[in-house]
Amino acid sequence: MEFSSKLLEDAVNEVAQLPGIGRRTALRLVLYLLRQPDNQTNQLAKSLLDMRSKINFCSSCHNISDNSICKICSNQNRNKSTICIVEDIRDVLAIESTATFKGIYHVLGGKISPMDGIGPNDLNIESLVLKVKTGLIKEVIFALSSTMEGDTTNFYIYKQIQDLEIKVSTIARGISVGDELEYADEVTLGRSITNRIPFEISLK
Amino acid sequence: MEFSSKLLEDAVNEVAQLPGIGRRTALRLVLYLLRQPDNQTNQLAKSLLDMRSKINFCSSCHNISDNSICKICSNQNRNKSTICIVEDIRDVLAIESTATFKGIYHVLGGKISPMDGIGPNDLNIESLVLKVKTGLIKEVIFALSSTMEGDTTNFYIYKQIQDLEIKVSTIARGISVGDELEYADEVTLGRSITNRIPFEISLK
Repeated sequence: MEFSSKLLEDAVNEVAQLPGIGRRTALRLVLYLLRQPDNQTNQLAKSLLDMRSKINFCSSCHNISDNSICKICSNQNRNKSTICIVEDIRDVLAIESTATFKGIYHVLGGKISPMDGIGPNDLNIESLVLKVKTGLIKEVIFALSSTMEGDTTNFYIYKQIQDLEIKVSTIARGISVGDELEYADEVTLGRSITNRIPFEISLK
Repeated sequence: MEFSSKLLEDAVNEVAQLPGIGRRTALRLVLYLLRQPDNQTNQLAKSLLDMRSKINFCSSCHNISDNSICKICSNQNRNKSTICIVEDIRDVLAIESTATFKGIYHVLGGKISPMDGIGPNDLNIESLVLKVKTGLIKEVIFALSSTMEGDTTNFYIYKQIQDLEIKVSTIARGISVGDELEYADEVTLGRSITNRIPFEISLK
């Protein structure tokens, strides 16, 4: 694709660097911005620049935050003795949207994955272990994805905190609500039978 | 989705205004930028701002251009007497990439579409008719999309230039190269039989 304008070409090339956006989509987005008032492009650029230059990470849980301590960690109504370990900021958003968890989070920033060159030192594991060792934490919930890397990370962290007197749990795996049994994979279905729960609890 | 940061939320909202990008995709793109070096966000923002504020449209053909006359219109090797009428800048790019057209273009900026409130005066039709009437144009090629709006626009322009002594043609419709006949729609197949061409020409 040869462009009649260097400015257009530069903009398309930059937008096409975003993940999942090819050159055709980039061109469509850029031409869309050209048809809209100047203001929209200015706002978009400003919000991206502001975010990149001013954003902070919570010094306690490593979640994205505008201040040095995030809204969740500084919220007096959250239970500071229960900590949920997640991979990513998006997982915090996902769990928050269920409104079922009232504790605090710890964002690892990924999973241990030797294939991708990610070791324990690349993740926020040390600050987690220190936090758990203060004695203020009563329960740790693992909410990492159910993959080999997720399980490895869970186990690595578990080994460091297993001698402490705290409850360690992991989120339940099973058939999704609304799913039909016949289409579920065997591993998930097997786990959901092994980890069956008293019927009265499922009514709550 | 409730964000822990106003800066993040603003950025996601702005990105989600782009066509075809929802809030989840916007969040993914924004978090990707956060993980990359500052430089990438700065370059992206700068190229968008530069493009929006500095870009010009060719005063002759209305194509996007860095100068007042675009590269194609100012190219001495192009045949200025043959003009190809297209809807959009993307159509110019598509035809240019075939390297089969050596004339110049005229970008209408859309099609006549009363349903969307687009009338002839919203398009670059007047400048086209004036250009054709100078007498320097020998052939006009309609390359609009084959829809009711495209046909209406073709016909509207044709009515204004039909009395001039110029050749008016439209791009060929037919079965795509490589397509199998049995899967072609009836209208396209019918047209490709009606407008059959001498076999010798197809060999060229």
